[in-house]
Amino acid sequence: MWTPGQRLFVALLALMLITQVSPAAYAAKAASEYRLSNGLTLIVVPDNRAPVVTHMLYIRAGSADEPPGTSGIAHFLEHLMFKSTEKLANGEFSAIVSRLGGQQNAFTTSDYTAYFQRVSKDHLGKMMEMEADRMVNLRLEPKEVDTERQVIIEERRVRTENVPSSILGEQMSAALYQNHPYRVPVIGWMHEMAKLTREDALTFYKRFYAPNNAIVVVAGDVEPEAVKTLAEATYGKLPPNPAVAARVRPQEPEQRAPRRVELRDARAGNASVRRYYLAPAMTTAQPREAEALYLLMKIAAGGGTSRLYQSLVAKEKIASSAGGWYSGLNLDSGTIGIYAVAAEDVPLDRVEQAIDRVVHELRENGATQAELDRAKKQFLAEFVYESDSQEAMARRYGSALALGLTVEQIDSWPETIAKVTLADLKQAAIKYLDIRSSVTGTLVPVNPDPENLIAAPAPETTVPAAPATAGRPSRVAQ
Amino acid sequence: MWTPGQRLFVALLALMLITQVSPAAYAAKAASEYRLSNGLTLIVVPDNRAPVVTHMLYIRAGSADEPPGTSGIAHFLEHLMFKSTEKLANGEFSAIVSRLGGQQNAFTTSDYTAYFQRVSKDHLGKMMEMEADRMVNLRLEPKEVDTERQVIIEERRVRTENVPSSILGEQMSAALYQNHPYRVPVIGWMHEMAKLTREDALTFYKRFYAPNNAIVVVAGDVEPEAVKTLAEATYGKLPPNPAVAARVRPQEPEQRAPRRVELRDARAGNASVRRYYLAPAMTTAQPREAEALYLLMKIAAGGGTSRLYQSLVAKEKIASSAGGWYSGLNLDSGTIGIYAVAAEDVPLDRVEQAIDRVVHELRENGATQAELDRAKKQFLAEFVYESDSQEAMARRYGSALALGLTVEQIDSWPETIAKVTLADLKQAAIKYLDIRSSVTGTLVPVNPDPENLIAAPAPETTVPAAPATAGRPSRVAQ
Repeated sequence: MWTPGQRLFVALLALMLITQVSPAAYAAKAASEYRLSNGLTLIVVPDNRAPVVTHMLYIRAGSADEPPGTSGIAHFLEHLMFKSTEKLANGEFSAIVSRLGGQQNAFTTSDYTAYFQRVSKDHLGKMMEMEADRMVNLRLEPKEVDTERQVIIEERRVRTENVPSSILGEQMSAALYQNHPYRVPVIGWMHEMAKLTREDALTFYKRFYAPNNAIVVVAGDVEPEAVKTLAEATYGKLPPNPAVAARVRPQEPEQRAPRRVELRDARAGNASVRRYYLAPAMTTAQPREAEALYLLMKIAAGGGTSRLYQSLVAKEKIASSAGGWYSGLNLDSGTIGIYAVAAEDVPLDRVEQAIDRVVHELRENGATQAELDRAKKQFLAEFVYESDSQEAMARRYGSALALGLTVEQIDSWPETIAKVTLADLKQAAIKYLDIRSSVTGTLVPVNPDPENLIAAPAPETTVPAAPATAGRPSRVAQ
Repeated sequence: MWTPGQRLFVALLALMLITQVSPAAYAAKAASEYRLSNGLTLIVVPDNRAPVVTHMLYIRAGSADEPPGTSGIAHFLEHLMFKSTEKLANGEFSAIVSRLGGQQNAFTTSDYTAYFQRVSKDHLGKMMEMEADRMVNLRLEPKEVDTERQVIIEERRVRTENVPSSILGEQMSAALYQNHPYRVPVIGWMHEMAKLTREDALTFYKRFYAPNNAIVVVAGDVEPEAVKTLAEATYGKLPPNPAVAARVRPQEPEQRAPRRVELRDARAGNASVRRYYLAPAMTTAQPREAEALYLLMKIAAGGGTSRLYQSLVAKEKIASSAGGWYSGLNLDSGTIGIYAVAAEDVPLDRVEQAIDRVVHELRENGATQAELDRAKKQFLAEFVYESDSQEAMARRYGSALALGLTVEQIDSWPETIAKVTLADLKQAAIKYLDIRSSVTGTLVPVNPDPENLIAAPAPETTVPAAPATAGRPSRVAQ
């Protein structure tokens, strides 16, 4: 049997496939927003299909807020938040959630850190009590810190060091961002992770973990006012930190020259090529620009009907997979990504040239009305589909608010998407698919012996020469 | 008529051209080192050929010590040091030096900032008095700050924005350093320079400008003890800053993948290619490594007798100029550089392949004894030649001490150079001419319209495809 929410979802999906959807249809589950007197933001999203709640805490602090030289501390602290507090023993937080039959997780991004529990609705108060406790009462015992440092190092080993495509992604981000801390991997550089101290964690904790730097999202079978009362009885008792301020990070200079990163790794599968372009974030884009980029990248590279897939995989058969995306939910800047995996025995150059043709064509002639209409429908379908997931809804509001967006902006997003024109798409393509603000990465399955990394010496030949000079660069300013 | 110093120089030069030189010969002009009670380091280098002195102040603070987001503040402050103090009006410092018939200058690097005057010896006391004054009494009037900001912006415009090879160098440094602040140009990124404030300058000044963070070098016709007395009467009266500490900056992660930067600029001359490799600094290198790198790069690319020049310019005639260097006088890491300018109508690929052949050959087979002997002689000749310049001697000691090297290390450098073996050279070549820790830059004279920057679409063809996957990168750590 379907719940009312599921019925609504299916009804909307059906509607959308036939006709233009009325944007008002998405505001069905209205989110309530509160601000406690200590500055904490509370969002409640009713979802009465089952007697469960999703409780999320967002802290407005991520890896891009780390002091230089302490990369990984935001993520390390996320791990340490499960250690002992004044009230709970090491590991007790997780044990209680499990005992109550709940699920939990946590994650760190460049811009925020989030903690998550899904429990039956009568345990919401307990979750809030425990989450409020560890927001200010973390003990950070030296032994806990030392043990957990080994865990994050192992995590990096498994997720990054052992995955050539992850290494390439890191190297590409480091080349894409010339000045902004987004260049630094969220998990941290290994040599810096190994030196992270209790003091580094404590400094980060005291600076960012405070109710006036937090957003709590509760989605589920709850009444907003009742949740507010619970929040006031738990989070509401915490003192605000007067030192919390808007985050100001170094911004990118004008980007002038395309970059390339060439990773050779014996563990790589088929050769692949990837490109990142610097793009605006939702928060920094001009009106409709971010929305145009979402649609543009759907048309260009989103899934099997996209131009990239159709051209490289279906038609030319030079790639075994291909795709792309725009990611705009960041504080300072977004990214456009495109990738393709070369088919057996196809030179990577050919694959890259094919990507360039797709990009070139979009910059030159834009998209068609049929493509735009289909992309909008796809976008709306995904938005509605996602709205059916309690956790996804909690994440949507939590992450948006952590970045400075408003509930209204999120709720009206389908309307904004609906307004995007072909001219918006073409302008976005010309402005942001600009090779000068891009990095192209290649991953080739070759033994990483340095000798294999140098271009094979070509035979010598002779041509006439003309005199000229080239200056020696210097790091000196008079 | 020759002065005794000139005679010594010529004698040494002659000696050197005939036979192995006794290293002891270079210690002729012994430098005296003092430490004042407030922590200031004083170096006196006697040079009695003429009644003049070179007076230099080194502050252990450069662009790599700038708070993120305030790039250019070290250099901006260097400019502002010529503005008003409690005792001198705006511009009076320079006016007095000129009136006394002196010369002066100042410069900023990644690691230190230096101020320089050359005056007749009876004015040394006055220079010390004025330099000590502005070390602590700078007023930084808002109007002076605003005016001078325009000057540094104009300086960047002239020296960087208008010089494509400078832009390329900046872009390459930003790609070479993935984590270290050496990535940021000394003069600053334009968008950050435009926002530098009086408070930024004041914060940097108060943090770094103090006698216990300073080195004073006096070279010239002086008695060390007399200079010490003068220094105590001027600099000696300044209070130390207890907050001065050793500089700890973010270090580079393991470098894994070669990078490329491709700048197209209508103002470029002939196409050129450049490569930077990450290398150790004098201060971080293993014993004899830095010295081996100096000699290796002399053999590889230093001047008309080098392998690079002989191969690309003299023999193959594919380049109109070519050269290279190792730069190790930095606090945290050094750089190896190689460049070549393509001869008329020679494709840049061919020039780069020729560079790769020279590098490959050195890694594979090392240098010859004859090359090593000649490089040592060249190095010693330059060392001795430089020792003849009062200003160069002052700079040599000042910069070395600003980086944490000792007078003894500098004086014994020729001895260390003499000890370098062919095995040292080969080991340095294998270890540091490693493409994985390099960036290759190309500068091509093409109209910078974005359309010209995208690879020309190649014709489509068809080959069979095989299924595979490629992951989407994410900046999320669970």
